[in-house]
Amino acid sequence: MPARELTIGFDADDTLWHNETVFAAMHARFGKLLAHHHDAATVERELLATELRNLECYGYGVKSFTLSAIETAIHLSSGQISAAEIQHLIDLGRGMLAHPVELLDGVAETLAGLTPAGAHRLLVITKGDLRDQQSKLARSGLADHFDEVEVLAEKDRAAYAAILRRHGIAPENFLMVGNSMKSDILPVLALGGSAAHIPYPLMWLHEQTAEVPPANGRYFELNSLRDLPALVATLAAL
Amino acid sequence: MPARELTIGFDADDTLWHNETVFAAMHARFGKLLAHHHDAATVERELLATELRNLECYGYGVKSFTLSAIETAIHLSSGQISAAEIQHLIDLGRGMLAHPVELLDGVAETLAGLTPAGAHRLLVITKGDLRDQQSKLARSGLADHFDEVEVLAEKDRAAYAAILRRHGIAPENFLMVGNSMKSDILPVLALGGSAAHIPYPLMWLHEQTAEVPPANGRYFELNSLRDLPALVATLAAL
Repeated sequence: MPARELTIGFDADDTLWHNETVFAAMHARFGKLLAHHHDAATVERELLATELRNLECYGYGVKSFTLSAIETAIHLSSGQISAAEIQHLIDLGRGMLAHPVELLDGVAETLAGLTPAGAHRLLVITKGDLRDQQSKLARSGLADHFDEVEVLAEKDRAAYAAILRRHGIAPENFLMVGNSMKSDILPVLALGGSAAHIPYPLMWLHEQTAEVPPANGRYFELNSLRDLPALVATLAAL
Repeated sequence: MPARELTIGFDADDTLWHNETVFAAMHARFGKLLAHHHDAATVERELLATELRNLECYGYGVKSFTLSAIETAIHLSSGQISAAEIQHLIDLGRGMLAHPVELLDGVAETLAGLTPAGAHRLLVITKGDLRDQQSKLARSGLADHFDEVEVLAEKDRAAYAAILRRHGIAPENFLMVGNSMKSDILPVLALGGSAAHIPYPLMWLHEQTAEVPPANGRYFELNSLRDLPALVATLAAL
């Protein structure tokens, strides 16, 4: 029996299942569609600029991405893009929403191993499109492992503080697990919680940060979710 | 001091602020854009069919609507719609997201009157796009009246049951207030809660239902939110 109960928050995209690979494949197809207008680097740069400009208004997710992709295509083709090509972009977006959920290596076994212990509370804490995230969790087969699911518009310090308050979690008993330093690690450390970073090979530019986590004994770097149970056992025994 | 504390859930769109009027104005502009291809009734019918076909995949909200409008325009124009016209649809969608939040008559005063009593817990329970709904609540100036905000992908019986469970609310102490019989009234009555229906002059076809609420003493029809405090006082004294 562990000395104390932890609440463990799991990021979803690129922590539990592959996501950025799906976006990367879509970016490649988008570049191809516009290849007779511009080189790949220009297309990529313009698409990112459009996405960031629309972020405040649209938020994250596939529908936002699709709308930004259509807008970028119209702009970069000087309005020459055809309705059929725009329909193709809409179809690609819908394909992303229907894309099979592919779990990262070791996720199902690791969660199953953490759950029966019953000593810890597991949450999903993700951001993006409400329906898409809920649909992915349902299709992942992982939903039963989690006590609560929080889909946020933004994963910043205020949003984490609201979750800790709502669920009555003391920061010293909270561990967040995720691939994004900016969204999963830094805001949680700032609130006095612990955080385990598991890098994913791909990272959307907007999520990248140069900030380095403070070496305060509450930050951990793992190679894989398979390393989590050992960390949890150590933290729970403190 | 009331005999018991109630939790009062408020729908947001067309209950706290005008929403369907904004969509109706957008529908009118959309019909105009396609007027040289089809009559208004055909455009309206096709748009609704596209929206409903995409609902499972896209969910509710302005971005979903915009994508369905683009798709409908491509289809109804047999691919003849120009990129500039599609950009116009994107701009109209973004205009909807930035549209000022216009409160319904009496909302601000009524909520202010309910809050200081402090005897009841007030929630917003709405569906649709997470970021858009949170943004509208922030811009409405009403956020401080509410203890919690729940944005759902769907407002059905299971979703309400999850909210009651999560917040530890007994159904007999729960009153839901809203304009949609389908989303705000029937599922709550089915769970044993009370519900106050305040009709709004416009209603999206998808929200319309022929079902009549059971006459079980837990269903109330109000003309305006101004009538709510009297109902709350009556229920709390039971």
